[in-house]
Amino acid sequence: MRTCYTGEVCRDQLGQIVTLFGWVHRRRDHGGVIFIDLRDRAGLAQIVCDPDRADTFATAESLRNEFCIRITGLVRERPAGTTNADLKSGEIEILCHDIEILNASVTPPFQLDDDNLSETTRLTHRVLDLRRPQMQRNMMLRYRVSIEVRKYLDELGFIDIETPMLTKSTPEGARDYLVPSRVNAGHFFALPQSPQLFKQMLMVAGFDRYYQITKCFRDEDLRADRQPEFTQIDCETSFLNETQIREIFEGMIRHVFNKVQGVSLPAEFPEMTWQEAMDRFGSDKPDLRVKLEFTDVTDVMKDVDFKVFSGAANMVGGRVVALRVPGGAQLSRSEIDSYTQFVGIYGAKGLAWIKVNEVAKGREGLQAPIVKNIHDAALAELLKRTEAQDGDLIFFGADKAKVVNDAIGALRVKIGHSEFGRNNGLFDNVWKPLWVVDFPMFEYDEDDNRYVAAHHPFTSPKDGHEDFLTKDPSKALAKAYDMVLNGWEIGGGSVRIHREEVQSKVFRALKIDEQEAREKFGFLLDALQYGAPPHGGIAFGLDRIVTMMTGADSIRDVIAFPKTQRAQCLLTAAPSSVDEKQLRELHIRLRQTEVK
Amino acid sequence: MRTCYTGEVCRDQLGQIVTLFGWVHRRRDHGGVIFIDLRDRAGLAQIVCDPDRADTFATAESLRNEFCIRITGLVRERPAGTTNADLKSGEIEILCHDIEILNASVTPPFQLDDDNLSETTRLTHRVLDLRRPQMQRNMMLRYRVSIEVRKYLDELGFIDIETPMLTKSTPEGARDYLVPSRVNAGHFFALPQSPQLFKQMLMVAGFDRYYQITKCFRDEDLRADRQPEFTQIDCETSFLNETQIREIFEGMIRHVFNKVQGVSLPAEFPEMTWQEAMDRFGSDKPDLRVKLEFTDVTDVMKDVDFKVFSGAANMVGGRVVALRVPGGAQLSRSEIDSYTQFVGIYGAKGLAWIKVNEVAKGREGLQAPIVKNIHDAALAELLKRTEAQDGDLIFFGADKAKVVNDAIGALRVKIGHSEFGRNNGLFDNVWKPLWVVDFPMFEYDEDDNRYVAAHHPFTSPKDGHEDFLTKDPSKALAKAYDMVLNGWEIGGGSVRIHREEVQSKVFRALKIDEQEAREKFGFLLDALQYGAPPHGGIAFGLDRIVTMMTGADSIRDVIAFPKTQRAQCLLTAAPSSVDEKQLRELHIRLRQTEVK
Repeated sequence: MRTCYTGEVCRDQLGQIVTLFGWVHRRRDHGGVIFIDLRDRAGLAQIVCDPDRADTFATAESLRNEFCIRITGLVRERPAGTTNADLKSGEIEILCHDIEILNASVTPPFQLDDDNLSETTRLTHRVLDLRRPQMQRNMMLRYRVSIEVRKYLDELGFIDIETPMLTKSTPEGARDYLVPSRVNAGHFFALPQSPQLFKQMLMVAGFDRYYQITKCFRDEDLRADRQPEFTQIDCETSFLNETQIREIFEGMIRHVFNKVQGVSLPAEFPEMTWQEAMDRFGSDKPDLRVKLEFTDVTDVMKDVDFKVFSGAANMVGGRVVALRVPGGAQLSRSEIDSYTQFVGIYGAKGLAWIKVNEVAKGREGLQAPIVKNIHDAALAELLKRTEAQDGDLIFFGADKAKVVNDAIGALRVKIGHSEFGRNNGLFDNVWKPLWVVDFPMFEYDEDDNRYVAAHHPFTSPKDGHEDFLTKDPSKALAKAYDMVLNGWEIGGGSVRIHREEVQSKVFRALKIDEQEAREKFGFLLDALQYGAPPHGGIAFGLDRIVTMMTGADSIRDVIAFPKTQRAQCLLTAAPSSVDEKQLRELHIRLRQTEVK
Repeated sequence: MRTCYTGEVCRDQLGQIVTLFGWVHRRRDHGGVIFIDLRDRAGLAQIVCDPDRADTFATAESLRNEFCIRITGLVRERPAGTTNADLKSGEIEILCHDIEILNASVTPPFQLDDDNLSETTRLTHRVLDLRRPQMQRNMMLRYRVSIEVRKYLDELGFIDIETPMLTKSTPEGARDYLVPSRVNAGHFFALPQSPQLFKQMLMVAGFDRYYQITKCFRDEDLRADRQPEFTQIDCETSFLNETQIREIFEGMIRHVFNKVQGVSLPAEFPEMTWQEAMDRFGSDKPDLRVKLEFTDVTDVMKDVDFKVFSGAANMVGGRVVALRVPGGAQLSRSEIDSYTQFVGIYGAKGLAWIKVNEVAKGREGLQAPIVKNIHDAALAELLKRTEAQDGDLIFFGADKAKVVNDAIGALRVKIGHSEFGRNNGLFDNVWKPLWVVDFPMFEYDEDDNRYVAAHHPFTSPKDGHEDFLTKDPSKALAKAYDMVLNGWEIGGGSVRIHREEVQSKVFRALKIDEQEAREKFGFLLDALQYGAPPHGGIAFGLDRIVTMMTGADSIRDVIAFPKTQRAQCLLTAAPSSVDEKQLRELHIRLRQTEVK
């Protein structure tokens, strides 16, 4: 048995004989002595083999990188000047008495400390990639997050109840992964997009407080930070109102950051309505580290000559905003050009700007081609509202509100994170959590010509908004809330509808007729009839939280065996073709024409 | 906010005003006063509404079973003679000041305390079924088991790492559930039958100690205690030998039983080789509570006139065993007949027996039609080996070993559990854990004419048995172990192969050629080349463990939303038919002829 993990040997064991297991991270021959950096999940230790012990030395000479070995030896201080403060074992070394090779290794396809590996290489050789210290740390941290979540929730009486993976397809929202049934020919299970309805059933069943850290599935085209299967911290509680629910889960995130990273998040997370977030930041998940915000000037620009502004200002659903960048006058023309290109990604047709050289001089103190087409009153109001200072740059967005919000919202973040932003106090490098609340119940789907649920169809309207469900769905606000951290939505939830008649009204607002509602959600409507308690909850994205905490580039770096953006596992070569016999048993066949 | 759970109000709150939430379990009107049994997940409390408060009383009168309510009232002692020792709240009652109806209920389809509900009714109305106190206790106990498992493993440095649900189909062992890929036309994922290969990869990656409580999937025809999806406590560790591994997980089960149920399992679980278990009990998961065992008399019966015995004794792979039942002479002829029918289920063609009236009288003291066809020497040896006593009954099994073991093994358990067995000291009603070890590496598949893995193909042969892999696979024993409790296999595991050349030998013994091995398990063979550490592990069936601990009739009683034996969810009506559009996107079509 080992004495302790290799990475944990330290001064405590000085003078002791220890047994360690691990992998040869590096071997150096120096002055007739062999040095081995031995590695395990806890870190590295330095093993010294000198020629006095001939057998051991010969074994040491045969070692190559990634050999798996057991060593026994004496812990002693490193010679002065050779200590390594980065390692827990940095003050000691182990004088090797004995080595056993547990398993040899062929030459790895890459060096473990190579930081320039392609993701394809890393995912193909995932087993070796996972040996890299950073990946080991990521997976350990992920584990600490989940165990601290469990501790916190257990303390508050939440119980983990498993919900089915083979469940019913309800094609609403994202695309389902389907599983053909063998026993029930022509029928299919779906993998859950979330345990939403099951957790509501558990509340109706009286379990009072539920949680689950569980896999969810969405068959969507994968963006940078999406995976076909992802992990949700899924929670639900009965008999609490929105504020009480949020308090519990704000506490959970605070607990996790504190226990896992020693970070103290604010004692109370600020909250902001969805409307305010859109008005000030053009985003429902604003990154509050960035100290820039929108100034709405739609009303100011209605009668200016500059058609881009007046056109948008007078358009139904149009919007004109200014984004004042303190000190931005120092940005070069080419930097401004690259921002113009950048906002194009979000559909903006251009990027108007004004350099503020001297506010006191009024029009004369401003510099920009567009200034001449904006009349004095509008300019004055603009400077007043933005509180522009000498040396500022003001960017503008003018288009449909969605385009303005997306484009200037993204620009705001881009500038804030830029070197310029960081050097000019526009970026506050701390954790900035936020609750965004009072979401609209519905969004209008122009293509389908109907309202769709902004959160999901089981979300309760705010008190007093029930009448809007029938009269004007666009006005109905929801008891829905998102937890936002540094510009990422890390969790979202709501108080649910617990009365059958309200649920039916929402289905009607969504143009889901009675028969369809029965077919898809009959079991929910039934359950609500039997004294369903008031309840609500939240779901957090574990992959995202861990990605943020580790500072990883991608959620693929915090998942042991992720899929590529083509939804493939390069390690095991999944998905793969299967036997005709298997398909026959499942009562399906391939559409030949489409198969390569 | 509530003061505490309804079921937890007790003398501690005497004289206090409390607020409680819950469901109306029962309402009784008695002597002008209304009594409400209010229920939540923690239990019941008695609420008393008297007519002094007219509004509250009127509300109380409107209450029906399963209404969800909030009440506020004064905790006071129950009148003498009306206390209920079965309830935590049994010494107090709450004088109701105020009631709020949070949600009414239509009349439930059944009474919650009806113990004679069909399973179809229960699963169709699962939400109400889950409100029943027994189901609440089952789910809570299940949670306690899983959290205690986590605590124990965390303490020992095991970390929970999630493995993929969408993985590669390897049609070996059970039938896979398949998931068609949309992005990769004609290709399929499989849901994992277990995370076996991934956990081995994690060991090769150096994570050292892994666990996961995770769903596994097998598309098999469902027997009483199988589900399409089931939950495994899956564990793996590096650098330990078989004994060390077993010690850890024996400790885990001891910990869980102790913490969750206050039961002390033996400080050391007995162990028994697979061969001994088959010899003595005809089963690799013997129920040691039953104090009956086989006596092998194959050699004794080779030359007797009774052809059933001599035939089996001389057959290749035949076996003749005696099962002595102390005091069994009192069994009636009709009881013996019913046992004869019972062993027929397992393929036995009959059930020979001998009543032992007086041992001292030899042949004369025995009673049975078969006695006359067994010669003196055989009878004498039989009585000697079985240590028969006056009043015993001896049953016999004579057939191919498998039939004998199955039939007489089942008979042994049947008699032990019978009223006769319990009344005659043949059944010891305690927890009887056991390790069964030294399993064979392979079983011969007569249909396929080849060896198949008894455990799985990644199991290490015992030291010194490696040569058998090529020379005589039937002789190779494995470093495999099952944990058996009261006749149920609750966990099984093995030390794995960590050298590529041994793994290749096993594949060859299984007639898996090099190309097939590459295709299916190439990533494992690759991984083993890079200094794979010695490793091994175990997987426990959580559903089974909890079923045993709760004494539930079926694993369906410890799963919140189980499937029926037709693999259907009666609550949500899954599986179900899906849109043609969905199938088209997945590049599949139904085989029309087979669809109803």
